[in-house]
Amino acid sequence: MSTLKNDRYLRALLKQPVDTTPIWIMRQAGRYLPEYRATRAKAGSFMDLCKNPDLACEVTLQPLERYDLDAAILFSDILTIPDAMGLGLYFEEGEGPKFKEVIASTADVEALGVPDPEQELKYVMDAVRVIRRELDGRVPLIGFSGSPWTLATYMVEGGSSKDFGKVKGMMYDNPTALHMLLDKLADSVILYLNAQIAAGAQAVQIFDTWGGSLTPQTFQEFSLRYMEKIVAGLTKEADGREVPVVLFTKGGGQWLELIADTGCNAVGLDWTINIADARKRVGSQVAIQGNMDPCVLYASPDVIEDTVKQILSDYGTGNGHIFNLGHGIHQHINPDNVKVLVDAVHQHGRQYHS
Amino acid sequence: MSTLKNDRYLRALLKQPVDTTPIWIMRQAGRYLPEYRATRAKAGSFMDLCKNPDLACEVTLQPLERYDLDAAILFSDILTIPDAMGLGLYFEEGEGPKFKEVIASTADVEALGVPDPEQELKYVMDAVRVIRRELDGRVPLIGFSGSPWTLATYMVEGGSSKDFGKVKGMMYDNPTALHMLLDKLADSVILYLNAQIAAGAQAVQIFDTWGGSLTPQTFQEFSLRYMEKIVAGLTKEADGREVPVVLFTKGGGQWLELIADTGCNAVGLDWTINIADARKRVGSQVAIQGNMDPCVLYASPDVIEDTVKQILSDYGTGNGHIFNLGHGIHQHINPDNVKVLVDAVHQHGRQYHS
Repeated sequence: MSTLKNDRYLRALLKQPVDTTPIWIMRQAGRYLPEYRATRAKAGSFMDLCKNPDLACEVTLQPLERYDLDAAILFSDILTIPDAMGLGLYFEEGEGPKFKEVIASTADVEALGVPDPEQELKYVMDAVRVIRRELDGRVPLIGFSGSPWTLATYMVEGGSSKDFGKVKGMMYDNPTALHMLLDKLADSVILYLNAQIAAGAQAVQIFDTWGGSLTPQTFQEFSLRYMEKIVAGLTKEADGREVPVVLFTKGGGQWLELIADTGCNAVGLDWTINIADARKRVGSQVAIQGNMDPCVLYASPDVIEDTVKQILSDYGTGNGHIFNLGHGIHQHINPDNVKVLVDAVHQHGRQYHS
Repeated sequence: MSTLKNDRYLRALLKQPVDTTPIWIMRQAGRYLPEYRATRAKAGSFMDLCKNPDLACEVTLQPLERYDLDAAILFSDILTIPDAMGLGLYFEEGEGPKFKEVIASTADVEALGVPDPEQELKYVMDAVRVIRRELDGRVPLIGFSGSPWTLATYMVEGGSSKDFGKVKGMMYDNPTALHMLLDKLADSVILYLNAQIAAGAQAVQIFDTWGGSLTPQTFQEFSLRYMEKIVAGLTKEADGREVPVVLFTKGGGQWLELIADTGCNAVGLDWTINIADARKRVGSQVAIQGNMDPCVLYASPDVIEDTVKQILSDYGTGNGHIFNLGHGIHQHINPDNVKVLVDAVHQHGRQYHS
C-alpha cells in the first residue's frame, strides 16, 4: 500500500494535531455532479452502479478531482446487507429504496442468515480494493454501513417510511423478534465493516439515519446498544494505523453523551445543535464531525463562507473537528458552491490549529 | 355560554390543581375513526369538510362520544391562512397538501394580504361557534394555527417537503423576503387566533411542525421570534377565564428553554425527550403537554397501559401535566386502543394529584 499523503481526516478523528480543519461531505459522490449523472447513465440502474467495482470507483473519485477533499467515501448503498440477506433491494425512479420481501414475523427473522461479506457482498469488497488502489494514498478511504436499527426500519417497512408504524409496532408489540433481527444485523455489520477494513477502508462510519425517530429509552435499547456491540467488534488497526469509527445518529443531538459512551472515536452531528455546545458536552471524549445545514449550499458564496467561519469559530481552537454537512448534500445545488465550501474550511480553519 | 363542566385541561395548562391528569390527542378527530370516514365521504373533499361548519362540528365531537377526553379541538387544517391569502390549497388523494400558487420572490410576498378572519376565514369562525354551542360546556374547545415558519414552508415549497430546499434557500439567500413573509403570517395568525377566541375557543395551540428542521440560530430568528410575537398579541381572557396558549415545536426538544421563554403557558413535547428531563428544565415556568410515541397505539393494551404509567411517573407528582401523544394519532391504529389510553391516564393519573 502506498503512503498516505493527506492524513488530516484520520488525525482529526483521533484528536491529533493537524494544520487545518479537514472536510469531506456526506454523499459527496452524487447526483449534484454532472459527471456522476453521466456514469450513472452508463451503468444502468443505481444498483448496477453499486455492483460494478470499476464504476463505483469512478464515481467515488469524481468529487476529489473537483474539490480539495480530505477523504473519499466508498460509493455504495446503506441497504446492501438486507439485499444480501435475500430481501431484493430495488429502486423506482424518483422514489426511495424498496424491498421485494419484508420482515413481518418472528419466523421471517429466524429465516434470515448473516451474509458472508466476501461472498454475497464481494462486489462491495472489490470496490473497496479498486478504490484504495486508485486513490494511491492521496486521501484515506471511509467505509460505512447503516446501523442495525436503520436497516431494520427498511426491512420491516419494505422501504422508506414517514412514521415507522410497522417497525415500531414490532418494537412495542414483539420486541423479542426485533431484538433477534437487530442482533443478526449487528453481527452482519461487524463482518461487513471488518471485511471493508481488510479490503482497505481506513476509517468507518455507521449511519443511524433513523435513530432520531425513537424515544430516549427505545433509542438506547433498540439502536445504541447494537451500535455499541458493533464498535466493540471492529478491527482496531490496519496498515499499522488505528481505524477510527464514527457514529452518526441523525436527530441524536439530545443523546450525544450516550453516543460518545459507546467507545466510538467521533460523533457526527446534524445541524440542529450548535457545535460549541456539542464540544462542551462530549468534546473531551470524542472528535466531532459536522455540521453545516446542507441548504446553506443554495445560498451565495459569501453566505457559505460566513457560515463556515461561524461553525469553525463555534468549535474553536484545538483538535478533533472534522467539517461536514449535517446530512447528505442535496441534488439541486450548484457544484461551484461546494468548492467555495471546501476552500473556505481549509483557509479559515488554519487559525484554529497551531 | 353554559358553565364548563370539565375544566381539567384548562386548569392543568395554568398549573392549577386537578383531580387527575387531563388528556386530549392530537388529530383525535381523524381517519382512524370509521365515523369520521363516513362523514368525510358525505362531505366530499377534505377541504369541503373543513369549510362546512356543521360537518366540521360533527367530526370534532365524534371522539368525545367514544372516549372520556378532556378537550375538543376545532376540526380544520393548518393551511387555512395561506389558502385565504389566495394560494389555492388542495389535496390529492394519498398525498399531502399542495398549493396552486407558490411564493418565490420578494414581489410574491409583497402581493400577499393579511386575511380578515371574519371574511375570508368566516367558515372557521362559524365552525368554532357551532362546536362551542354543541359542546354545551362539556369540555373546553381548543383553537389552533400553524406557526409562521411552518406555514411559510408549505407556501414556498408548494406543499410538503423532505429537505426544505426552497424555503431554506430563501432563508439563507433572501432573508429579508422571508422575514417579510413571516411577519405577515404572524399578523395573520394573531388576527386568526383572536377571532377564534372571540368565537369561542378557550385555549389555543400553535403547531410549529417544521421548526425542528432549523438550526438553533435560524430556529430563533425565523420561527421562535414570530411565535413570541403571536403570544404577545393574543387575547388574554375570555368568558372571565384566562385563555392559555400552547407552543408545540416538533423536534424542539433541544430548545425547550427558549420556547418556554416566549411567555406561552405550556410547551408541547414530541416523544424524543423524557418528560422528567423536560419538567426539570422548564417545568417551573410552564405546563407540559405530551408525550407518548403515537406508535405505542399499535401495541397491545397492557403495553399501552404500562407506557402511560411510565410517562405519568416520569412527570411525577404535582400540577401542570397534560397527557397527549408526541404527534398526531396514526390512521391505522385500532380505535379500541385509544379507549385503553384515555382510561389509563385518568385512572393512574389520580395518584399524582392530591
